[in-house]
Amino acid sequence: MKNDLYPLNRRLPVYTRPLARLIEQLQRLPGVGPKSAQRLALYLIKRPDAEIEALAEALIQAKQQVGLCQQCFHLSAEPICEICRNPNRDKSTICVVSESRDLIALEKTREYRGLYHVLGGVISPMDGIGPEQLTVEALVRRVSQEKVKEVILAINPSVEGETTTLYVGQLVRPFTKVTRIAFGLPMGGDLEYADEVTLARALEGRRELE
Amino acid sequence: MKNDLYPLNRRLPVYTRPLARLIEQLQRLPGVGPKSAQRLALYLIKRPDAEIEALAEALIQAKQQVGLCQQCFHLSAEPICEICRNPNRDKSTICVVSESRDLIALEKTREYRGLYHVLGGVISPMDGIGPEQLTVEALVRRVSQEKVKEVILAINPSVEGETTTLYVGQLVRPFTKVTRIAFGLPMGGDLEYADEVTLARALEGRRELE
Repeated sequence: MKNDLYPLNRRLPVYTRPLARLIEQLQRLPGVGPKSAQRLALYLIKRPDAEIEALAEALIQAKQQVGLCQQCFHLSAEPICEICRNPNRDKSTICVVSESRDLIALEKTREYRGLYHVLGGVISPMDGIGPEQLTVEALVRRVSQEKVKEVILAINPSVEGETTTLYVGQLVRPFTKVTRIAFGLPMGGDLEYADEVTLARALEGRRELE
Repeated sequence: MKNDLYPLNRRLPVYTRPLARLIEQLQRLPGVGPKSAQRLALYLIKRPDAEIEALAEALIQAKQQVGLCQQCFHLSAEPICEICRNPNRDKSTICVVSESRDLIALEKTREYRGLYHVLGGVISPMDGIGPEQLTVEALVRRVSQEKVKEVILAINPSVEGETTTLYVGQLVRPFTKVTRIAFGLPMGGDLEYADEVTLARALEGRRELE
């Protein structure tokens, strides 16, 4: 009965072992601190068994089944993703994004009918990420071998993003037209509160009134 | 090949099925909206297999193994929890809290050496929670049958909490001394920014300088 010796002055009061372990696991998630991990765990423990099993199952299945599309490197449960396989999409345009979540954001506009290419990050020497860690080579191969009319670079305008845009742009330019998405004042934005870099970009990107 | 017919005008762009399912599951968690569910899922999918399995395992195990202490109703993997089993604790004092998380908060002060009783909520007729849904009866039985010198009520000072405090207090008073924790200005708090109810409580609870 080791537990009966449990001293009152132990370091910190803890939940019963299995619960403490769950809190510990939840705390590893991004944006989940000790307090929210505790709240989540206490919530989960009160849910019906079936619900917890569904969550655990979804975790395992997603991890086991989801890989990357062999053509565009979007997250996909099939070797070639739904977008690449869709015969209604315009195969002559490739939009280059950093991550799958950017692709999803663009898809939500329902404005774009071409294909994508997911780099898997941005060039960031500080984090040891060079072009070799990204899918740049595969992009160049795609563009040089297929009939691509336009490559649209849609990479976040951070320092690393700009570097990546310039680097990828240079490699792809010999084969096709290269454009990049516009930056400027967001819709509903306010000139007074916009930062100078955004305003400078907005000025620079000005277009004639139609 | 149903997927090849996938129309461009489908409602919303989605992630591949297993990933969408995971996002859906994560979105059910309290405080997790669609955006954070997506961020979490994309994070999880990139983690090593072992890490995901550990999380899924912790979920299942916690759900399977954690129940309530038969004496105090604190979350416990054993029939009687560690606190109730600890021979060094003062069995003549019972601190009544609403939830296990309140017990943990009190334990962290390391000031309290007595036992606890977890009600499992507060009386809230609006939500259909009466004393029968709580562990009030068991508390009265404990207090009436054991040698309890003091019951400390430590329930959040909300409207429902106050009702619960008064209700439980009345039932327990015939058997033992009943106290409640103090309310007032929090340490480091600022008179100027404290709400009137807190200030009124602080005034009401004033004590002579020693």
